[in-house]
Amino acid sequence: MPHPPFTPIVEALPETVPFVGPEAIERRTGIPTRARIGANESGFGPSPKVIAALRDAAPGVWTYPDPENFALREALAAHLGIGNDEIAVSEGIDGLMGLLVRLFIAPGDVVVTSLGAYPTFNYHVVGFGGDLRFVPYQRYHEDPEALAAMARQTNARMVYLANPDNPMGSFWPAADIERFIEAVPETCLIVLDEAYMETAPDDFPRIDTSRPNLLRLRTFSKAYGLAGLRCGYAIANRRIAGAFNRIRNHFGVNKLAQVAALAALDDQAYLHQAVESIAAARTRISRIANANGLTALPSATNFVAIDCGRNGAYAVRVLEALGEQGVFVRKPAAPGLDQHIRISAGPDEQLDILEQAMPLALRAAQGSP
Amino acid sequence: MPHPPFTPIVEALPETVPFVGPEAIERRTGIPTRARIGANESGFGPSPKVIAALRDAAPGVWTYPDPENFALREALAAHLGIGNDEIAVSEGIDGLMGLLVRLFIAPGDVVVTSLGAYPTFNYHVVGFGGDLRFVPYQRYHEDPEALAAMARQTNARMVYLANPDNPMGSFWPAADIERFIEAVPETCLIVLDEAYMETAPDDFPRIDTSRPNLLRLRTFSKAYGLAGLRCGYAIANRRIAGAFNRIRNHFGVNKLAQVAALAALDDQAYLHQAVESIAAARTRISRIANANGLTALPSATNFVAIDCGRNGAYAVRVLEALGEQGVFVRKPAAPGLDQHIRISAGPDEQLDILEQAMPLALRAAQGSP
Repeated sequence: MPHPPFTPIVEALPETVPFVGPEAIERRTGIPTRARIGANESGFGPSPKVIAALRDAAPGVWTYPDPENFALREALAAHLGIGNDEIAVSEGIDGLMGLLVRLFIAPGDVVVTSLGAYPTFNYHVVGFGGDLRFVPYQRYHEDPEALAAMARQTNARMVYLANPDNPMGSFWPAADIERFIEAVPETCLIVLDEAYMETAPDDFPRIDTSRPNLLRLRTFSKAYGLAGLRCGYAIANRRIAGAFNRIRNHFGVNKLAQVAALAALDDQAYLHQAVESIAAARTRISRIANANGLTALPSATNFVAIDCGRNGAYAVRVLEALGEQGVFVRKPAAPGLDQHIRISAGPDEQLDILEQAMPLALRAAQGSP
Repeated sequence: MPHPPFTPIVEALPETVPFVGPEAIERRTGIPTRARIGANESGFGPSPKVIAALRDAAPGVWTYPDPENFALREALAAHLGIGNDEIAVSEGIDGLMGLLVRLFIAPGDVVVTSLGAYPTFNYHVVGFGGDLRFVPYQRYHEDPEALAAMARQTNARMVYLANPDNPMGSFWPAADIERFIEAVPETCLIVLDEAYMETAPDDFPRIDTSRPNLLRLRTFSKAYGLAGLRCGYAIANRRIAGAFNRIRNHFGVNKLAQVAALAALDDQAYLHQAVESIAAARTRISRIANANGLTALPSATNFVAIDCGRNGAYAVRVLEALGEQGVFVRKPAAPGLDQHIRISAGPDEQLDILEQAMPLALRAAQGSP
């Protein structure tokens, strides 16, 4: 039967989902999620002031959001000490990734990332016909030197580095990141994903928007506890930050996200408290791992990667056995990383459930073929 | 200085904004908006049940939304009597437009629309390198017969028709739309934008997802009063509805939008009441126009186009003079339509302000050069 053809790029794309949500797992298995510690959300929730602001704003949802995200860009600019035209706001970092790939990557252009790094970035690169090249992790760190070298060798248009890293939780101090930035050609865009920066040591390169090829991604989804509202932002020079206006969905960031992000940014005291709670939860997750004979990796993020001590298939069995007890966690899939599971920080009630479930899950995984 | 080059398509794009928000106008002029009746929002607001649902959901914004929008697709499917895999949900109709252009339009592909129809659709077509062809309005209606003829002549990949129409408010009964659908080749996607369907006569083609080339767009932004939350949906056959999963931002629809849309859909009694209020407001806007010697066009939408009786430049002066009094309205820009201003339905307090402002605005417009 005749029908409208997709574009050649779209025709070749699978209907992949970068991440299956816990809701979909619940629907499939029928097992209710008792501990939601798999998506690196903040179980400590947003600031009470954010919740109050959302409730106040609810009757006003009949108006479109400000398409310029002006108030939020102004607040972020003041917070960061840069111009509001050096900030682009979008529907989470995921939304920004789709846009920035579209800005810079034509079919066949090379993009460099790490094997096992954030899959949604890869999804967008493939979605615009980019040519992905992978650099292996080195001892559970993304490898800045090798990434820069690969970018030079392949004449890449874009190179991706997350610091702190997801899914391993590792961290590079400012000096290493600065060396990386210097080593990448100025015609290659550096996408520096700092989604987890709030929970890391205070040792980041200072914000310098004079660099023509540096874009930094940040979000309200992690330490700020606003994952449900979809609000991330990019920091870059005016040429790049402004270019998002050529292609973005101008009314894409919803009004309650704007309200909540403003209120969240304004409550830095709550942020510090959340970061402390996250650090305590990381310690407890590591202790639970150790108590079960497993090794927890150091983490600069709101999650902990735990080495299950055998191969990837075994770690999948541990993950599934946790899932059968209603404990939602995720795991890296790339070879060399896949012996780990990844557990998000959460309040004690959630970690109590993890603590009970872990020995049972390990027994089940050891007993299964 | 060397810098990362944009793709050839992006390099050629301007930093256009399809619509300037009233917030930006306020920032520029310093005049506070007293009557917000320009963006075809619903000043009657959402259902009280929606507001209550939003307030209840506020503490839960720390979790990511369900990336499959499952509950909402289920509810819409039941409401429409189709399968949940025949529905795609996104960040407003604007978001869906960007995605569907990306699915079907490669650089140089022809897309047919009406001269003066929804500019955000054009923005996305240009943004992906499509070749836009325009059909003039006929007596303030989009011209289905001429659109279908142009689609055939140009071997178009996509043809856009809004019914009811924005910005003129006109409406075609089901029989005319069905004739249009039959006249478009099955290899050309019909984008039937029904954003304003709730306020129109109950005379639409029945939902038939067997058609291989028909996609209908609907939204919670208009009669449902949820413009701020960004939630629209597409109705199409499984091939097309599923294809959005190849390229969409899976976590793009925020959690409060999902909550609010579900609650809104569930309160059809409120919807009927809102539609009645909108109809009464349309009548009052027409009466205000007539009392000032102007002609109001019939409307099947939540706004009324008013012929200011002279040319486009004069209508711009009327619009600006209303703006100086804090009355935010918009106007069509295309030749043949541009003698009109477009006023959104709103509650009586808003229309009281319009009623006072209109004679002053006309006097100012007549007096200015």
